[in-house]
Amino acid sequence: MYSQQRVIIEDVKPQLDGGIHQIKAVVGEIIPVSASIFSDGHDVLAASVMYKSSEASEWQEQRLLHTGNDHWIGRFKVDKQGGYEYKIVGWVDYALNWQYGIGRKIDDNQHVKSELLEGVEYVMRVRDKALPEEQDYLNYLIDEFKDEERYTAATRSAQSDELKAIFTKYPEKFLLNSSVLFKVYVDREKARFSTWYEFFPRSASSEPGVHGTFKDCERLLPRVAKMGFDVLYFPPVHPIGEVNRKGKNNTTHAFEGDVGSPWGIGSKFGGHKAIHPELGSLDDFKALVQKAKELGIEIAIDFALQAAPDHPWVKDHPEWFKWRPDGTVQYAENPPKKYQDILPIYYESADWKNLWQEMLDTALFWIEECDIKIFRVDNPHTKPFYFWGWMIEQIKAKHPDMIFLAEAFSRPKIMHQLAKQGYTQSYSYFTWRNSKDELIQYMNELTTTDQKYYFRPNFWPNTPDINPWALQSGNEATYLFRYFLAATLSSNTGLYGPIYEHLNGAALEGKEEYLDSEKFQLKDWNWDIENKLTIMISRINDIRKSHRSLQQTNNIKFLNLENDKLLAYYKYDDLHEDETLMVVNIDPYYAQKGWVQMPLHKLGVPEGHPIGMNDLISGSNYIWDKEWCFVELDPSMPFHLFKINK
Amino acid sequence: MYSQQRVIIEDVKPQLDGGIHQIKAVVGEIIPVSASIFSDGHDVLAASVMYKSSEASEWQEQRLLHTGNDHWIGRFKVDKQGGYEYKIVGWVDYALNWQYGIGRKIDDNQHVKSELLEGVEYVMRVRDKALPEEQDYLNYLIDEFKDEERYTAATRSAQSDELKAIFTKYPEKFLLNSSVLFKVYVDREKARFSTWYEFFPRSASSEPGVHGTFKDCERLLPRVAKMGFDVLYFPPVHPIGEVNRKGKNNTTHAFEGDVGSPWGIGSKFGGHKAIHPELGSLDDFKALVQKAKELGIEIAIDFALQAAPDHPWVKDHPEWFKWRPDGTVQYAENPPKKYQDILPIYYESADWKNLWQEMLDTALFWIEECDIKIFRVDNPHTKPFYFWGWMIEQIKAKHPDMIFLAEAFSRPKIMHQLAKQGYTQSYSYFTWRNSKDELIQYMNELTTTDQKYYFRPNFWPNTPDINPWALQSGNEATYLFRYFLAATLSSNTGLYGPIYEHLNGAALEGKEEYLDSEKFQLKDWNWDIENKLTIMISRINDIRKSHRSLQQTNNIKFLNLENDKLLAYYKYDDLHEDETLMVVNIDPYYAQKGWVQMPLHKLGVPEGHPIGMNDLISGSNYIWDKEWCFVELDPSMPFHLFKINK
Repeated sequence: MYSQQRVIIEDVKPQLDGGIHQIKAVVGEIIPVSASIFSDGHDVLAASVMYKSSEASEWQEQRLLHTGNDHWIGRFKVDKQGGYEYKIVGWVDYALNWQYGIGRKIDDNQHVKSELLEGVEYVMRVRDKALPEEQDYLNYLIDEFKDEERYTAATRSAQSDELKAIFTKYPEKFLLNSSVLFKVYVDREKARFSTWYEFFPRSASSEPGVHGTFKDCERLLPRVAKMGFDVLYFPPVHPIGEVNRKGKNNTTHAFEGDVGSPWGIGSKFGGHKAIHPELGSLDDFKALVQKAKELGIEIAIDFALQAAPDHPWVKDHPEWFKWRPDGTVQYAENPPKKYQDILPIYYESADWKNLWQEMLDTALFWIEECDIKIFRVDNPHTKPFYFWGWMIEQIKAKHPDMIFLAEAFSRPKIMHQLAKQGYTQSYSYFTWRNSKDELIQYMNELTTTDQKYYFRPNFWPNTPDINPWALQSGNEATYLFRYFLAATLSSNTGLYGPIYEHLNGAALEGKEEYLDSEKFQLKDWNWDIENKLTIMISRINDIRKSHRSLQQTNNIKFLNLENDKLLAYYKYDDLHEDETLMVVNIDPYYAQKGWVQMPLHKLGVPEGHPIGMNDLISGSNYIWDKEWCFVELDPSMPFHLFKINK
Repeated sequence: MYSQQRVIIEDVKPQLDGGIHQIKAVVGEIIPVSASIFSDGHDVLAASVMYKSSEASEWQEQRLLHTGNDHWIGRFKVDKQGGYEYKIVGWVDYALNWQYGIGRKIDDNQHVKSELLEGVEYVMRVRDKALPEEQDYLNYLIDEFKDEERYTAATRSAQSDELKAIFTKYPEKFLLNSSVLFKVYVDREKARFSTWYEFFPRSASSEPGVHGTFKDCERLLPRVAKMGFDVLYFPPVHPIGEVNRKGKNNTTHAFEGDVGSPWGIGSKFGGHKAIHPELGSLDDFKALVQKAKELGIEIAIDFALQAAPDHPWVKDHPEWFKWRPDGTVQYAENPPKKYQDILPIYYESADWKNLWQEMLDTALFWIEECDIKIFRVDNPHTKPFYFWGWMIEQIKAKHPDMIFLAEAFSRPKIMHQLAKQGYTQSYSYFTWRNSKDELIQYMNELTTTDQKYYFRPNFWPNTPDINPWALQSGNEATYLFRYFLAATLSSNTGLYGPIYEHLNGAALEGKEEYLDSEKFQLKDWNWDIENKLTIMISRINDIRKSHRSLQQTNNIKFLNLENDKLLAYYKYDDLHEDETLMVVNIDPYYAQKGWVQMPLHKLGVPEGHPIGMNDLISGSNYIWDKEWCFVELDPSMPFHLFKINK
């Protein structure tokens, strides 16, 4: 580089792929930054993080601190929803460099008259920027530095903290160099802390065999709210295709009265902007959304970009689908599997710009017409990544509080890429992580690698698509600790509730699919059920609401505990103002005991210091004053959730 | 991104800082590459590494192989000195995708008439690019695919390897995406494998007390060559300043007859383009360079950008130095230390462009006038990094075979940055790495982190500036194994020879400085000395010349050996055609023994397979056929250097 710049800035953290993708935060979050900053020679450097909301014109600044070996750290706070930019800048601070040098020479008993004259120049330069009272002081120094009679006083003044403070306050950023620009997207807090409940509106009726409606759903809202959920997610609410409709248990033939899969979207009743007639009207839906809101619940809808063969798009925009040489339309397939109730959208269509626009318009319809702010997106990994990048950017520019949950149960890099393209939250592998080792390894991957910057996992013990082996054979303890793990390991959690609360793990043989799945038929749930599981779910959700350490995922430390069936972890908020400690027995059959090592260093207390441990589940209080503390848990109540009081 | 592209390319390796800096290789090297490559959905992808010499206009291509979980690998070879560029490209391969899909459907006993018609389209498209004989085959397939009578034969042809080979040979790169461009600098082989010897020409005289000359140096060349060194590095050969000249042992006062430090460059006899009169003339120097060349030795000169107070630059270009408010010139200093025989160049001068140009011209003078191709650069970390980046780029554009060794014994990030800015080789921390743990940890840092791409260490047991504690107190064994370690751990190695061969570790008290250092006075060396040490140095150097595993640094594996004083390591060239195994006793006083674990997996042989171990030091031969083999080494000959014959 043909430039006189001398300061090198490298290894800036946080960052994603050199600034190509944005990292994620929520409103009010403090973002720690670090970088390698150095120059040739021995001159004193200074550095800052510069940051601003993308809409703002003025940069804000926070100085960085050198912690040794050319490593610098700092932090900045994001207060506003939407995009932010930041960069690291560094410069040679000649004024501080002069002060450092003259100090060393005075210590070495060298005569520094010439150095004092150099100092006059630095003091004069800073004087012009200083406040009037500071200017008086600086003028005094200038006289003193020049006055040979006051040499001794001048050597003291030259080294003073007052002068250092003024130099630091008004830096002259000589040969300023800058990192590239990095971006943060700042979401509302719900992006990081949300508690989802899923049910099928069509099963909301209180009368067996009768198709549920949005009105029926309204009746269920207080229960959902009382259990502590704040997002209510519905599978697609659009007209269900009648051509090639699926029968019960995913059979290819539907009999008279079979309701089909809500994901087979579109029929003579309309497409992605219409409501399935049996659920009610668009007005009913809007009313439901508002009723839910009054109870602190946001309705999330399913954004599933695929079409039943009788979707209006197929007739109106045949160029949005792929047609084969024999004149037939291309069904969804993953050879040799075929999905004949669904046509994939043909993103490589020559008409792709109109196609993308229609997808965007569809999303905006629900956002702007119905006040929907959360989308659970179905199979996003079968649509182009850049399409999502574009669409989410377009939507968030107008609606920064939108939340997108990616339903991609796919390979790691696929899931990560969707998050990089802007997805707010992602379904995760938690559903299949059962052993202590698996859980710790997965959590470490999520919270200690780059993933912590952009991949916000949402932990679901089950979904309508996944009835995991562990739950199929699970007893009450299993259902209890699986929800506890989901809701305390991750701040975003969700439950396909009705079937879970009934402890119903009946499966299609040899598959992780529910038997008689609600995806293809109506179900009659007892919506008044109350049992140990529902009580515990409610209590866990309630505790989450009042403990900030549980409203985030990344600040977690697993604790030493020599028992493969006992898992202990400590969580804390950014300022260590709220600290909790969880112990879980993941053996569904036997009591387990062991000694847990307290994270004394993280807690900042010495061994012997009495720590109040308040079990928020049982209400019991303990004092722990040892580094290693005894715990024992029975499957009948397989967890502690301690609030730590130091 | 508003684009239909579907393929994502990430995590390309090798690369440095996202492509900002170039990685390094030598002519003939094979560069392995890898990347994460994936797209939405299930389509078959293909990918290549595209590469070319920066001067070439055509890209060359090597296909990548998918090894699972979206990870792809490949390699390319660099044949030409100078800059290279490479990038990773990926695309959806619809022809292969079609072939994969129809295969799965046929396996599933589905009827694929419609799929065969789709295949006709792919075959027709590839036909236009194919060779005549391939076209005949493809025309045959087109007829067959269309002919319902030959349906069964068509299903076989559709899945054939022949068709797959043609699709692979002539890919249609649909929706091609590309990584950014990355750069490699390809040096000549000596950049990676060099054996340096250093002496002061002024001590080359055979008569005690007489100032040596280049003519005297000529007499010493055969000895240097016979000992197996191929680079002969001289401290600065320019006129030595007379103002503020340093006296013996770095005292600030020089007495009559004191010769001063060669690094205090410039006097009435000239500056950086002149020869110190007492050494001879410029023609003498040129003659020496050519004589050395005939013996296979390259002369390396010292490029030390600083000036004595009486350097001609100070009078001719006062603006290239810093002047203080009191009218005096700024001496070099690192407060409270002052170096009054040296003025630093003021890179922040307003006249910096002329200054930089003069530095460049100075380098080009020695390169073009005197055929010098190797510079050892003095204290490069006290000059701006970007200055070096610019200068090295300018020089290498004209002289791609230039080698620059950075003499920066500084903090890690400083040393790394110089390598990133283009330094070919770097002095290293080897000089202070003594214990087994230290050596292994340092080697792992050099060879398993990003440093392996750009930081080529040069291992020196000593230099005129460093008489390390270990050598000050070292016996013959110490001197033997320290050189052995330097020369077998690293392919670039060097020795400040005369003092080392005399096992002279006398030091200034409490400092890692030689007593009566040659930096400030003439020395009378016995240039005919021959002892165990010189014989072993010669033998080690000789073995390095005929074993490619020792001509590189990165392919190394430390072997298990349960003895803190015994170090064992295995080295191999890229193709595993040359393999060596070193065992070193780093205890200077006692024999040490232990069991070394053979790297059977790396060697590709099963346990029990007899391996011929030919000790190239002693000439002894052994057969090792166990995984764990016994070794014992006495300080009198503290190493094995085995050639492995499988």
